[in-house]
This record gives sequence, C-alpha cells and structure tokens, in this order.
Amino acid sequence: MIKQYLLAPGPTPIPNEVLRAMADTMIHHRTPQFSKILAEVREGLKALFGTKNDVLVLVSSGTGAMEAAVSNLFSPNEKVLVINGGKFGERWLQICQAFGLETIDLKVEWGKAVKVETVKKHLQANPDIKGVLVQASETSTTALHPVREIAQITRTGPLLLVDGVTAVGVLPVPMEEWGIDVLVTGSQKALMLPPGLGFIGLSDRAWAMTERAKLPRFYFDLRLERKSQQKGAAAFTPAVSLIFGLRASLKMMQEEGLDRVYARHDRMARATRAAATALGLGLLAADNPSPAATGVLLPDGMDGDRLLDYLRDQMGITFAEGQDQLRGRIIRIAHVGYMGAFDVVVAVSGLEMALKKFGFPVKFGQGVAAAQEILIETLE
Amino acid sequence: MIKQYLLAPGPTPIPNEVLRAMADTMIHHRTPQFSKILAEVREGLKALFGTKNDVLVLVSSGTGAMEAAVSNLFSPNEKVLVINGGKFGERWLQICQAFGLETIDLKVEWGKAVKVETVKKHLQANPDIKGVLVQASETSTTALHPVREIAQITRTGPLLLVDGVTAVGVLPVPMEEWGIDVLVTGSQKALMLPPGLGFIGLSDRAWAMTERAKLPRFYFDLRLERKSQQKGAAAFTPAVSLIFGLRASLKMMQEEGLDRVYARHDRMARATRAAATALGLGLLAADNPSPAATGVLLPDGMDGDRLLDYLRDQMGITFAEGQDQLRGRIIRIAHVGYMGAFDVVVAVSGLEMALKKFGFPVKFGQGVAAAQEILIETLE
Repeated sequence: MIKQYLLAPGPTPIPNEVLRAMADTMIHHRTPQFSKILAEVREGLKALFGTKNDVLVLVSSGTGAMEAAVSNLFSPNEKVLVINGGKFGERWLQICQAFGLETIDLKVEWGKAVKVETVKKHLQANPDIKGVLVQASETSTTALHPVREIAQITRTGPLLLVDGVTAVGVLPVPMEEWGIDVLVTGSQKALMLPPGLGFIGLSDRAWAMTERAKLPRFYFDLRLERKSQQKGAAAFTPAVSLIFGLRASLKMMQEEGLDRVYARHDRMARATRAAATALGLGLLAADNPSPAATGVLLPDGMDGDRLLDYLRDQMGITFAEGQDQLRGRIIRIAHVGYMGAFDVVVAVSGLEMALKKFGFPVKFGQGVAAAQEILIETLE
Repeated sequence: MIKQYLLAPGPTPIPNEVLRAMADTMIHHRTPQFSKILAEVREGLKALFGTKNDVLVLVSSGTGAMEAAVSNLFSPNEKVLVINGGKFGERWLQICQAFGLETIDLKVEWGKAVKVETVKKHLQANPDIKGVLVQASETSTTALHPVREIAQITRTGPLLLVDGVTAVGVLPVPMEEWGIDVLVTGSQKALMLPPGLGFIGLSDRAWAMTERAKLPRFYFDLRLERKSQQKGAAAFTPAVSLIFGLRASLKMMQEEGLDRVYARHDRMARATRAAATALGLGLLAADNPSPAATGVLLPDGMDGDRLLDYLRDQMGITFAEGQDQLRGRIIRIAHVGYMGAFDVVVAVSGLEMALKKFGFPVKFGQGVAAAQEILIETLE
C-alpha cells in the first residue's frame, strides 16, 4: 500500500469538491441548464484572467489554446518574435512554423529569464514583427519571464501572446492591467481539473486582429466560438463534466481569494527552494524562479531518472523530470493548484529519504526544517 | 484553502477504491447479486479474524457488536470480569451492567496493560466467572492489553470477549490460534470504511453458549443472523453500500498482505514514538504502546484542547484528544487503516509547528528526522 502524492506540474491533484461536481449526472449542452453554468464560469474566468473580455473555454489541451492564439491572429509569412527558453518556448516556435509564419527564434539559456533589453533590440531591428510570443512561467525550466516588462514595450507595438499554462492561477497575470493581448492556459494546472480544457482570453486589439488574420482555422475559430459562448452555448460539443468541475474549482478559488491563492503558491515555492538550499542542492532558476515548480539540480553523477522512478515506485511521490538537455540532471517539484504546506513537507522529506538511499549525504529533517520556517508564516 | 489530514483513530481516511465502490448503484439485498458479495466479504473477514467460523456483519457501530457479544453469551446475574483500563473498558462494564450481569471491575491505570497475574488471581478467587472482557487495543489510552497471554488462562475457563475495534487489521489477533471466544470490530478503523458496520466472530464454544444464554436480544440475535448470513442474506436490511466498500477494502488488504499491513502499522507507530521522544515529549503508554495510535503527553501547562483546535483549524490536521482525566493532557496520533509513511511526516511536522506556536521550544525537523530513520526501513 503506497499512497500517491502527485507533485508534478500537471496534471495536478483534484479536490473532492471538483471530483464530486464532475460526477454529476450528464446534461445536454444545448439547454438553459448548461447555459447558466457556462455563464457562471465565464464570469469566474474573466476575474482570473483580469479582463473584461471573453475568456473562451475550448475542448483542447493547453497546446490547442496556443495554436488557437496563433491561427486567429496572424496571416501567412507574418513575422513573429518567439522567446524560446525551454520546451514551451519551442512549442510556440513549432506552432508558428507549422502555420507558415516567419519566426525569429530568440533563444534564452534554459533556466534564465529573457532580458527585456534583448526583446527591445529585436523589435527595433525588426519593425515588421507582428507578435511576441512568450511563456509567463516556462514549466520545463521552472523559470519566469518578465511578462509585465515586455508588455510595456509591446503595448503600442506588436501583439503580446502569453502562454500562461503554469502561471494563470499561480501568480498574477492581469491581462488588461499589464497589457497582454492573448493569454492561454489549460485545465490541469492551477485550475485543479483533469486535462481536457483550454482557455484563451484576447484583448480588444487582438479581437480586431482575428478579423484580419488569414491563417486557416476551423475548430479553433475564436470568432465563431465567441459568438456561441456569448449566447450560452459552444461552437462544438463542450466537455460538460469538466465544466461542472470548472465551476466548482473557480468557486474554491474565489472563496480562498486570488491574493491568497497567489500567496500560497509563492510560499510553497519559497519553502521548497529554502529546503533544497538547506540540503546543499542548487536551483535551476535561482534568479527568476517560478512559483509553479522548483527545479532542483541533482548532485553530480546522480541518475535523475532512477531517482524519480524510485520516488514514484517506492514512496508514491511523483515529481517531474528534466527535459532534453536537463534530463536526469534536475527534478521539478510542483506547487501548482490543489497543494498546501504539507505537500511541501511530503516532497522534501521524501526527497531527503530518496537522496540518502542514493548515497547523497543527507541530514534528515534539515530540508524539512528550512521549509517549516517559511510554511509557518501563515499560521496565526 | 486548508487540506485536511484525518489522523484520529476513527473515522479514518477512506481510499478512493473504497469510495468508488460505495458510489456504485444500489442493488436489492435479497438477490443473488448481493449474496455473492456477502459470501465474498465473509471469506475475507474469516481470514482477517483468524477463524474458520462465521464473522457476522451487523448494521451497527462497534458498540453494537460489543452489546451483541454480551447479550448473546450470558444470562442474568452471571458474573463477568471486566478489565477496565480506559473508556472502552468502561464501555464493556456499562453494557454488562445494563444487561444485569454481576461485574467485577478490574481497574487498570490508564495507559498501562493489565497484569496477567492479576487476571489469574481474580479467576482463582471467583471460579464462577463466566466471561472475561478486555480490549486488545484500548483506543482511549493507546495501550495494548496482553490478550494472547490472557487467552492462555481462559482457554479452559470462562469465555474471553475481546474488543478488537482498533486491533483487528492493525495487529494480529488470530481468534483460533490464540483462543479468543468473541472478537468484535467496527468498520471505521483498519477496515478503511465509514462508520456503520459492526463485525463479530465467535468460537465454537461461544456459539454453543448462544443457545443457553438468557439475556434478551432481538436485533442482535446472532443465531438468527448467522442463519441468514449463511444463506447469503441478512436478518435485517444490511448496509448495502458499506458492504460494497467492505469488499473493496478487504481486497486491498489481501493484496497488500496482512503481514505487511501489520508491519506498516507497527512501523508508523514506532516512527511516531521516536519522533515524540526526539522532541522531548513523553508517551502515555510507553511500556505497552498500541500500533493503532500514539498517546503523546503534552508539556506541563499546555492546553491540549486549544492545541488540537489549532492543529485542526489552522493546519487541517485532526488528531484525537485525551478523554476524561487525560483531557487536555495528551493528544492521540493515529496510524489506523489507510495511512502511510508520509501521514507520519505530516503529523510530526504539523505537531512541531503547532508546539512552537504554543511556545514550546522545538527544533524544526528534529521529530521528522527521528521518524524518517524508521520510515526509511521499508524502502529497498
């Protein structure tokens, strides 16, 4: 009997309130009953995205919402600047290339943030850039990019498309306040749902662009989707049960209060970083860490894949691995969604035990203690 | 958002496998479908109780099963020896008195085990004693009584009635091997179910006594119940959903293997005791601790009720309080049922933080480290 602890950056644990909501009896999606639920979640999503505009609910993964962003805003051969500091930066690039855009691949060392100055230089050198694409939180490297600062440059220039998959609901990314043109996320992260829903919000000028954009799209045609969802329906069959769950998870987030949600994520991440440091381990994104997940550098010579298998199979703890060039060299401990102080304690104590089993000199409780010093902050 | 950790000795956490089973569509209880399920759980219960005889499933709490034990085996004014070392020893006494038995109240200091020698002396001084009633694990004091040794004396004398509510499924209490005449338990402990089911197993000589016993009973008439359950039904309407769950929980225990189940409980309890000791806290039942729960003595002057409220309301951790004279002076940390290594880590780290908040000098991680040293034992 090994209890399971899902501490990867998505899918994330699902609260009982959401599981129960999703278990509710199926209803038809072209009914006033469904329209009422959709209207309710649309309001919640606007608050979460920080926009007065529609946030559309798609039946897709987060990648689907990223594709929708690209295919609805650009025309063939238009030039875009892609900030590429990890797997999801690469994904923006792949989507743009698949749709025949001209891409500038702004490579950023994995774990680092893009420099705003560099973005500015590219925009100055290429006044024909129509869009800048970036991750708010680059899940693969656990690094944040300075979206707010980039938005100050793009506000009067190209569109700013932000992948908020492990940012929305984790840290503030208010679209209107910051000047973000497109913000996308998926259901299986901070929204505490299973995978299956994509979300996309557009600014007024982004909506204007959807009429001019000539890239082909059908399933992800946001104009049609907006028209349908404003009428309380969806262009194509919506994922009804997931939307039941979404209503429940948005309600939970509202009840907790978004400020507290963000503070909780921040606190868990700080506690995990303090724990890793106390154990003598380095951090991948030490200068610009995401509160969504902490990238912990493993000791030289340690086989990260084996360590993760061990944690999962012997202890029931699922962390995420490093990707591509980071494979085996880091682990990613997530703090996204339905997680709290004791998830950090479980993560750190489990890591301590696994590291010891793998021959790394660990003083038990040392990482946990460092985490406790921070986790106790909230307690009154 | 405060995640909940139910670490009291019942009700205990319920695995998803069991929750899902209980959510299954209702069936009628006088059908071959139900008979098949009942037959299956009856086999599992026999293995768990260590008996070839029937283990009957009652719609009752554990106390109902205790009452059934008394009312089915004795006649008015018969003399019984009640080993009374806590709230549940008192309960045996209350039941016997309510049914008009003559009781010898063998008081045992709370937290201590009864001395086998004392039991022997009482039996020698009172050859007319018809039954000895005892707890295997006295939940209120987290102490074990030496049931196996007592059974060696009673084997050829009075009946031995054992309250196994926090023992069955936690530690071995094999009825036939040890010579236990009646063993009872409830659903909300090691069986990982909600409250609502009582279980009772009888030895051959106990079954013989049910025919001679003259105490009044109807709902708990075990002769009728046995006849019905042997035919695949139940005398009165059974708790169908709970029995769905029971099938699932017995299957989980079988898959883990009873030896491993017992070893897991023992390990969690040892880890918790080591943690408390490392934190400088005393144990209530230091000489004879139950693996079901650990009774931790609080520092002088600390208000245990407030500490428990704080743990529950601020951290989401539910421990159990001390009862009667122990109220406010101890906490009970449970290890019963669906619990594993990281439940101990959560319990101990939470206790560390709460104690610090209450002014007790705690070095964070010290208790956790002591627990980790033991919890790591199982890891290969």
